[in-house]
Amino acid sequence: MKNFIFQNPAKLVFGKGQIEKLSELIPQNVNLLITYGGGSVTKNGIYDQVKNALKGRNYTEFWGIEPNPRVETLRKAIKLGKENEIDYILAVGGGSVLDGTKLIAAGIASEKDAWDIVLSGVADKQIPFSSVMTVPATGSEMNGGAVITREETHEKFSFGGDYPQFSILDPEVTYSLSEHQIACGLADAYTHVLEQYMTTTGQSRIMDRWAEGLLLTIIEIAPKIKENPNDYDLMADYMLSATLALNDFIRMGITQDWATHQIGHELTALHGITHGHSLAIVMPGTFRALKEQKHEKLLQYGERIFNITEGSEDERVDKAIETTEEFYRSLGLTTRLSEEGVGEETIETIVRRFNERGVAFGENRNVTGDVAREILNECL
Amino acid sequence: MKNFIFQNPAKLVFGKGQIEKLSELIPQNVNLLITYGGGSVTKNGIYDQVKNALKGRNYTEFWGIEPNPRVETLRKAIKLGKENEIDYILAVGGGSVLDGTKLIAAGIASEKDAWDIVLSGVADKQIPFSSVMTVPATGSEMNGGAVITREETHEKFSFGGDYPQFSILDPEVTYSLSEHQIACGLADAYTHVLEQYMTTTGQSRIMDRWAEGLLLTIIEIAPKIKENPNDYDLMADYMLSATLALNDFIRMGITQDWATHQIGHELTALHGITHGHSLAIVMPGTFRALKEQKHEKLLQYGERIFNITEGSEDERVDKAIETTEEFYRSLGLTTRLSEEGVGEETIETIVRRFNERGVAFGENRNVTGDVAREILNECL
Repeated sequence: MKNFIFQNPAKLVFGKGQIEKLSELIPQNVNLLITYGGGSVTKNGIYDQVKNALKGRNYTEFWGIEPNPRVETLRKAIKLGKENEIDYILAVGGGSVLDGTKLIAAGIASEKDAWDIVLSGVADKQIPFSSVMTVPATGSEMNGGAVITREETHEKFSFGGDYPQFSILDPEVTYSLSEHQIACGLADAYTHVLEQYMTTTGQSRIMDRWAEGLLLTIIEIAPKIKENPNDYDLMADYMLSATLALNDFIRMGITQDWATHQIGHELTALHGITHGHSLAIVMPGTFRALKEQKHEKLLQYGERIFNITEGSEDERVDKAIETTEEFYRSLGLTTRLSEEGVGEETIETIVRRFNERGVAFGENRNVTGDVAREILNECL
Repeated sequence: MKNFIFQNPAKLVFGKGQIEKLSELIPQNVNLLITYGGGSVTKNGIYDQVKNALKGRNYTEFWGIEPNPRVETLRKAIKLGKENEIDYILAVGGGSVLDGTKLIAAGIASEKDAWDIVLSGVADKQIPFSSVMTVPATGSEMNGGAVITREETHEKFSFGGDYPQFSILDPEVTYSLSEHQIACGLADAYTHVLEQYMTTTGQSRIMDRWAEGLLLTIIEIAPKIKENPNDYDLMADYMLSATLALNDFIRMGITQDWATHQIGHELTALHGITHGHSLAIVMPGTFRALKEQKHEKLLQYGERIFNITEGSEDERVDKAIETTEEFYRSLGLTTRLSEEGVGEETIETIVRRFNERGVAFGENRNVTGDVAREILNECL
């Protein structure tokens, strides 16, 4: 096990009817900004719940943080926040609204341009923020990361900073999600686990078991949710698994990968493919291209998750990869670039970008532009 | 899943050589008290590591917090702390030193007598405290609980309060632990998991999987540690599993039990049986006495942990209980009251105490004095 430091101070307020706790959770005497997405919360009743919970308090609203939140939009919120001397933000929405809010919180606290904060990789300072999370997927509700898109250049990068002070997770808010949103959310959570799990074996028995526990849970609930997306306990398991998939709990003392995410971000930035969906396309390709490097862990994964114990080691590895792709497809997602009309040209754009940036991703820092090409060719 | 609120702000600083980070972790300008146990840290080099890390800083030392820390001892530390205007405490030792320190931190911040704080169940206020944890067992390094003994009356009760600000866990400090300490530590961690796991089925798939992940890990490492107690990765897994067994991570949205602990505390208070050992004796008895109530979960536990799939349901339940007792014995612990010279008289004392206090423990609040008798009779 590697040395590590763990601290996650975010408060999780989980369950039915918890949105009404907002007024006690948000400190009195703050100058509050509430951030929203495109307006779905006005249709599913969440907006009314928030308004009722905060009756009698003054606040400013900012609407229109889009999926894959754009720095161009967020700069407007930062300007509004500075003008209004905002010192606390509540994000109401999915991972994009909260990720955008993390940048707004940093922008308000800083003189820097918002995109420079993203490029620096870390927000030095943020005003405090919290969330009512409505789309289980990114884990943003209990971590310090955010991913921001610059529309102008079709770039998508992440930065780190503070954790939300609290996040309210009411599984009932998920009842209004579309099948595609749920599929992408499950794929996102599943892949977050794999990015932390599919690395060198034998680093931590417990982290392996906990990652496997999340994978097994997601595999078990996914088909049941298709049958019954309004089952409270199923949606609670889904919502909690998305949070625990990316809140540092399963990465103690181990190496991580994240090459699939870096490639997926490019597909989203260039073609607007939903984040979770982009991962469902790239992850099986990453496994195929790097199956020798990930041989031992793929064997363990195949056996413990899919009960694959027959055949030669290579056959079992191939079977584990195939079964992973089948799982993503079973969610209702395509898993091939060709199905999304993406081909060689995009692949070469991504290779060129990686080469120009001089980056190399993955556990072993060997996913250069050329290796990204191998991976993407496996996704065609 | 039940509604829940989760927040654990403790910082975990885990790994080799981390004790030297003490001087940056403890705030400057605090008036520091360092608390210790009986002196084993002077023999295994930990005391020197702490002294070196804090070279040039002023602090007061308090020595002599005993196993099952006694309020009579802790009152002396509280007096010393008040006289010296202590405003920060570092506990260096095992769970007893840290549990005692939690009461010292509460006592310094309060006008109340220390035992009244324990009896109230919650510390309203504590001065900040942190730990260098040297004995993986109680999980006290990352939770808000503490168990205190009143020697005068042979009583042992718990109270809750703040979490440590940080805890340093260096697996190398475990190399000097005795076989019995390790056996009790593993039994303690294993039983902590069972107290949260062995309840109504179907409350949370993830919590079940994570609890099972810890149980499987402890079962896997226990015999290996016997063979090689100086293997870093084994001891790291042991140390981390003890922390994660009782830091709120595996109790989100589920009911808990803790009847075994309540009975075990009585055995420790009355006969001085080491805490982890007392649990190894009582837990199988609790299972036998309550096997109808816990039938479904015992089946799941038998199958997922011990691969028990043959025979009738009742046979599988019995087999799961037997295998649990065998596991505790395999650690090198006795599992029967008679082996410790404890008999009917003690059982009746415990029954009388429970009845006098009017308490009923366990998931269903049905472990009254009479049910405690049934459980203890199963431990003879």
